[in-house]
Amino acid sequence: MVNHNASQLDRTFAALVDPTRRAILARLECEEAVSVSDLAQPFAIKLPAVMKHLDVLGEAGLVVRAKAGRIVTVRLSPEPMREALEWLSRYERFWSGSLDRLTAFAERREVEAAGDGA
Amino acid sequence: MVNHNASQLDRTFAALVDPTRRAILARLECEEAVSVSDLAQPFAIKLPAVMKHLDVLGEAGLVVRAKAGRIVTVRLSPEPMREALEWLSRYERFWSGSLDRLTAFAERREVEAAGDGA
Repeated sequence: MVNHNASQLDRTFAALVDPTRRAILARLECEEAVSVSDLAQPFAIKLPAVMKHLDVLGEAGLVVRAKAGRIVTVRLSPEPMREALEWLSRYERFWSGSLDRLTAFAERREVEAAGDGA
Repeated sequence: MVNHNASQLDRTFAALVDPTRRAILARLECEEAVSVSDLAQPFAIKLPAVMKHLDVLGEAGLVVRAKAGRIVTVRLSPEPMREALEWLSRYERFWSGSLDRLTAFAERREVEAAGDGA
């Protein structure tokens, strides 16, 4: 069971564990570039704590930082999430599968109910 | 930014960080029920370490264990991964977006090339 991409997937999922980091990613999905201080503003935690979260996101390749004068802006770099999404997609068949089973069950009940009525 | 499901999503992503746990989930995707000793067999790590990974997966609600006599079997419980997949799906537009931009770029080059030829 060799998986050469394991370390990138490890980093991606580890970055996604924390709700603050997910909230940062969700915001960057809507806004193209946000300054670090603007990003930190909605959170109860202090700026250095937000910076640490940005470090984790940056190391996972999920955000990139750029400096323009004194302002550091952060942008989304969503590509690594593609592999995580693909990894999870294989389980999709279970939900459609359970839906199929549910439909089959409902249809069987319908046939039975029709039989009772006759 | 209140997210009432944060703790389940936290647990799901935390469970997915480790490649051994991902390998266990991947195996359970193909085989309906596997005994703990069979699950442990492909890994270089010892049985107690595998049991710890199964605890993490169990606490995240991703596997269920059942005991039949002396044999403990493990089954996949994929439902929590659905939320994780949905969370990640919002970033899909970036990949299709970059494909759109690439197509537009290629078309523009084609028009330019046709213009040069005329």
